[in-house]
Amino acid sequence: YSVLSSEKKKDQIEVKEAVAMETELLRDYGFGRQQLTEMLGHACATAITQVFPLASLEKRQPTGLVACGPDQNGCVGLACARHLRVFEYIPTVFIPKRSSDALHQDLRLQCERMDLPFLSYLPTEVQLINEAYNLVVDAVLGPETELASVGEPFTGVLQTLRGLKAPIVSLDIPSGWDADESSSDGISPALLVSLMTPKRCALSFSGSHFLAGRFLPFDLQRKYELNLPKFSGTDAVVQL
Amino acid sequence: YSVLSSEKKKDQIEVKEAVAMETELLRDYGFGRQQLTEMLGHACATAITQVFPLASLEKRQPTGLVACGPDQNGCVGLACARHLRVFEYIPTVFIPKRSSDALHQDLRLQCERMDLPFLSYLPTEVQLINEAYNLVVDAVLGPETELASVGEPFTGVLQTLRGLKAPIVSLDIPSGWDADESSSDGISPALLVSLMTPKRCALSFSGSHFLAGRFLPFDLQRKYELNLPKFSGTDAVVQL
Repeated sequence: YSVLSSEKKKDQIEVKEAVAMETELLRDYGFGRQQLTEMLGHACATAITQVFPLASLEKRQPTGLVACGPDQNGCVGLACARHLRVFEYIPTVFIPKRSSDALHQDLRLQCERMDLPFLSYLPTEVQLINEAYNLVVDAVLGPETELASVGEPFTGVLQTLRGLKAPIVSLDIPSGWDADESSSDGISPALLVSLMTPKRCALSFSGSHFLAGRFLPFDLQRKYELNLPKFSGTDAVVQL
Repeated sequence: YSVLSSEKKKDQIEVKEAVAMETELLRDYGFGRQQLTEMLGHACATAITQVFPLASLEKRQPTGLVACGPDQNGCVGLACARHLRVFEYIPTVFIPKRSSDALHQDLRLQCERMDLPFLSYLPTEVQLINEAYNLVVDAVLGPETELASVGEPFTGVLQTLRGLKAPIVSLDIPSGWDADESSSDGISPALLVSLMTPKRCALSFSGSHFLAGRFLPFDLQRKYELNLPKFSGTDAVVQL
């Protein structure tokens, strides 16, 4: 895929461009956060079914833990958790910090009313998480959040995630990574689902990598000189 | 599928129950119209790809006409049109009457900005439509609209649709049918995509029939004693 890139077009995008592109989608193209979040959450859940199909899971129950931060990344995580439930997984939701975002609150209510279990705190004993869950979805921090600017409970959550043996699925970026930098220590996901377009840090990611956000208008792809792979059929995601 | 129904459970639903169920989804479950409409439009477009795959279309271009009324049914039609474009069809949108609904206006803007062509009027000469389009999506009137209460331009549009040879895809109900009655004359779709649950009138429909709305919480399915078929894998629709 990267071999096919033209010299001019980009396989990854900087955070400031990603923010500008999303602003255009919302302001000029008439999209709403609710619909974008829904489609992205659906696509992330679809990617998970491809890399971790129900039949491949080792635990007796098709459990997963979905850790959702208070911002947009966490919103996508909540939508993803609900779609995982619809796809017959048993996701448990963990929200480290309440959000004041109305969309976040609605998406949380949807999960609660659909009887998804919630964790009130994350065990610091990673063995408990490894034993209980087939996988952990990391929707804690998005590309717009600088790690240096967040404190507890997020630093503690990231430390726990770093110690896990259960495979991690990160949405958009691995939480705590600098989205614009191509190297990082920190958590090490088995699956990364980039949202709309990969961020720079995806260059140094070596696990399974999928792209979600098929709705991105061709016009915007041209304007931002993106070199995105072709989705096939009605697929919501494409593997990179 | 209907053979498997228990005595108590229902394969179809009355309009008043459908309205009550949607009210609960929005009020008690925290869902938003924007996200429901997006998922339903996506599912309708997916059903179309199954019954009318790109490779099966007879015209040189994979064209379709999507006729969208001013209410919720038309909103789903607009989302469907956009997803059809993403799935590499070439849908043209026809809106017989401007809508004052902000969601409708946003969904229309999304189509405009993604360069979908719009028809300013529907040719009364059906041959022109038959020759230009592989299929016509009927998202004109939903189950809540009584035919007797609508006048022009809708009666004229329905008369044109009745005369078409191009196959019609109706969303939720064939426009102009009484949703609660099991017999009807009027337009005769090749494909019906029921939204969330089939309405009574689907009993007298003999074409391809799909169900969209996999997001419907199991709780609500039990409360309304629905006997819905099982979706498989990550499928957005199921054939009835």
